[in-house]
Amino acid sequence: MPNLKQASQIFHLADAQSLLSHDPDRLTAMMKTLHIAEIASLILETRDQHECQRLLRYVPNEVLGEVLLTLPEGIREDLLALLPSAVLSLALHDLSSDDAADLLQGLTEEKAETLLASLSEEDRREVRRLLSHDEESAGGLMQAELFKVRVDWSVGKVLKVLRRWGREIENLNYIYIVDDDDRLVGSLALHRLLFCEKKQAIAEVMHTRPAHALAGQDQEEVARIFEHYDVLALPVIDNEGVLIGRITADDILDVVQEEATEDMYRLAAVSDDDDLSEPIGITAWRRGIWLGLNLLTALLASFVISQFEGVLSSIVALAILMPVVASMGGIAGTQTLTVMVRSIALGRVSLAVGRRAVLKETFVGLINGCVFALILGAIASVWFPVIGWHLGLVIAASMLVNLTAAGMAGAMIPLTLKRFHIDPALASGTMLTTVTDVVGFLSFLGLAQVFLLPLLNKAG
Amino acid sequence: MPNLKQASQIFHLADAQSLLSHDPDRLTAMMKTLHIAEIASLILETRDQHECQRLLRYVPNEVLGEVLLTLPEGIREDLLALLPSAVLSLALHDLSSDDAADLLQGLTEEKAETLLASLSEEDRREVRRLLSHDEESAGGLMQAELFKVRVDWSVGKVLKVLRRWGREIENLNYIYIVDDDDRLVGSLALHRLLFCEKKQAIAEVMHTRPAHALAGQDQEEVARIFEHYDVLALPVIDNEGVLIGRITADDILDVVQEEATEDMYRLAAVSDDDDLSEPIGITAWRRGIWLGLNLLTALLASFVISQFEGVLSSIVALAILMPVVASMGGIAGTQTLTVMVRSIALGRVSLAVGRRAVLKETFVGLINGCVFALILGAIASVWFPVIGWHLGLVIAASMLVNLTAAGMAGAMIPLTLKRFHIDPALASGTMLTTVTDVVGFLSFLGLAQVFLLPLLNKAG
Repeated sequence: MPNLKQASQIFHLADAQSLLSHDPDRLTAMMKTLHIAEIASLILETRDQHECQRLLRYVPNEVLGEVLLTLPEGIREDLLALLPSAVLSLALHDLSSDDAADLLQGLTEEKAETLLASLSEEDRREVRRLLSHDEESAGGLMQAELFKVRVDWSVGKVLKVLRRWGREIENLNYIYIVDDDDRLVGSLALHRLLFCEKKQAIAEVMHTRPAHALAGQDQEEVARIFEHYDVLALPVIDNEGVLIGRITADDILDVVQEEATEDMYRLAAVSDDDDLSEPIGITAWRRGIWLGLNLLTALLASFVISQFEGVLSSIVALAILMPVVASMGGIAGTQTLTVMVRSIALGRVSLAVGRRAVLKETFVGLINGCVFALILGAIASVWFPVIGWHLGLVIAASMLVNLTAAGMAGAMIPLTLKRFHIDPALASGTMLTTVTDVVGFLSFLGLAQVFLLPLLNKAG
Repeated sequence: MPNLKQASQIFHLADAQSLLSHDPDRLTAMMKTLHIAEIASLILETRDQHECQRLLRYVPNEVLGEVLLTLPEGIREDLLALLPSAVLSLALHDLSSDDAADLLQGLTEEKAETLLASLSEEDRREVRRLLSHDEESAGGLMQAELFKVRVDWSVGKVLKVLRRWGREIENLNYIYIVDDDDRLVGSLALHRLLFCEKKQAIAEVMHTRPAHALAGQDQEEVARIFEHYDVLALPVIDNEGVLIGRITADDILDVVQEEATEDMYRLAAVSDDDDLSEPIGITAWRRGIWLGLNLLTALLASFVISQFEGVLSSIVALAILMPVVASMGGIAGTQTLTVMVRSIALGRVSLAVGRRAVLKETFVGLINGCVFALILGAIASVWFPVIGWHLGLVIAASMLVNLTAAGMAGAMIPLTLKRFHIDPALASGTMLTTVTDVVGFLSFLGLAQVFLLPLLNKAG
């Protein structure tokens, strides 16, 4: 029985390599017993494209397409460019319509057209229709394969047709019921069908308010419908209410992971497509763009500091302590920002909740501002006794100001982005640290200039 | 037809409030037509506990349990503490065993015992058994309700028994086949059953290597099995191979979101349980602990800076520029750290991949280190021409060192934590910025002390 852990203990790349050179026939046989996920892991372990291509030749045609789809996007696209059209055409053949569309999306237009031509006319039409939807919408996620029946049929007729036509549909868990214009009017869990009398009308036993997605709906919203309604599949309708496809929960798992990765990466100033398997140069370039943006904001902070050259050169303790104020503000702001971005992504932030959140986060900043003002004020006073408690007072005040600003900015930045229909995670981390750095340095050095410099001059 | 967007347009809290005071009977009727998710949204919108409790009285008993489970944990626990045992007992009654166990977990032990006593003996035994598993393991996720048949039965017998006993099981998509000792030997998608002859033996048509989870397996691993095998439900077996429960894909969606939230929060120094709906004091306390930890590392960085008082008071440009070096290192390191933590969470990092990743990330750091060394070196030379290109050279060298260290540390910290079986996300952000701050300040100020101070003295 395959369990991921056990499977990887059974057949390693080393075994495949040895079979590859010594007993290719056994490798062919072996590959047939492996699960798609296991084959994909083997391919991921290969060291170069040559070995990878050699191994791919032993993957059974009927699972090749699914294996390719399991691989990370970067690697998949490299392989798609390398594999001959004849092989890809075979791989395409055994895929459901949504998977076929996904695979074609990774190809050059020319190659995709060649492959499309090799499909039957019906399949080609379906795949083309799927390709016309935005990749990240319900239409882009759905598959055309589903089982639909007319609302005026009896349970017996449904069962009969199901036995005849349902065989090819994978994960057939719901039956969808449509009217004469193909509009969705109901759904029924397959196993419920078994408990009905054959004579009953399907309209009598169906669920008349089925949860559904609209073709144009964003995939994040679709995931939320799945989570709210705890369903394993969702029918997709167009603007006229016509049933055009269905999405199964296993596809939504991928969406949820993808969206979470996207938010995490954006918060950390990383591109969505960043991947460990991608070439060093590309990664360096992608990260470099974000680093460049950060350089600009860091230089802005430096510019703020440079306005206080006088007081900095008089009191070196300021240079020693100022990173603490900025760092604490950065962390406090990031805490708020992360909770906000995640809550927005999970659909938990309405307008009312958002307003309350800004207030709450500002207060949390104020409270921790007070606490750490006291602590850091005391430490500063003890560490640099020459300037006495005045330095402690200045850093305490600046800490209070910066943590409060951090809480407020951490809550307001993502909400503002959301209001302007921009992803709340995008660049918000950079915006936030700009605020906390500038407020931190400005308040600390500014207060020092106003209150400490006169003291020093008096003493001097 | 309910679609989240439409639903929220249909019935708002304001409507409920008005019905509450003017037409409570219609509110009762209305509640019966709403979906669980819709009722939960209404409750989330209430402003105080009084209103919330009043509204809860109108929630139909048969969905009350599920509504409670849909609410965020903090709010749910508050409500559970308030609701009388009699109401909770009704709510418990209509839940599946895993949901019942989840609900009981939020109660005081005493209250949980009272409620358990109200269940039938069989249900009580099942729920108790589920409660004995770790909440975050396959055993803690699974439900006891499933449909299992003996391996020596015919398809006809299976269908007959299914019609008799399967009615109560929700989302019944797979039939599990066990031997005489209740050990899992096969599975069969329900709809496949419809295409079999009644006379066929179930052993002939079943899938003999069903993917499965072990009761003790961590929920993150279970989610990975779901993703790899694209199944909608997974049987759970104990160490003897005995079938003890099943997990459905909708539960895994919650797990995936939960784990992603956990990683995001830990990377941002936020506790897993942080929530917008929790009281200000608790949030401030939870965040404060992390801020305290950050204060220690920020003070360590200050201590490093304080070792260079001499050169800092001679060249104020150092104080102005040093935050840039630290900030760039922090961002570059966080980029690497985030990609590593996420890749580990998604199960994409084997030992070999990890080793390659450290090399790759170090190189990426080196490349961007070179690029930004040139840029920042030039800026520094132009901005502070008094010390000439020497300052530019020092900041360039320090930038190169810090970005390389950032890449290496960003990759190694999570891998090392993982090796010691600690969550790679936990406190790794704080560790990383400690490294980049210390390396940044040390290299920048250290090089300045060695190369710039003698120049100044010579000039002076």
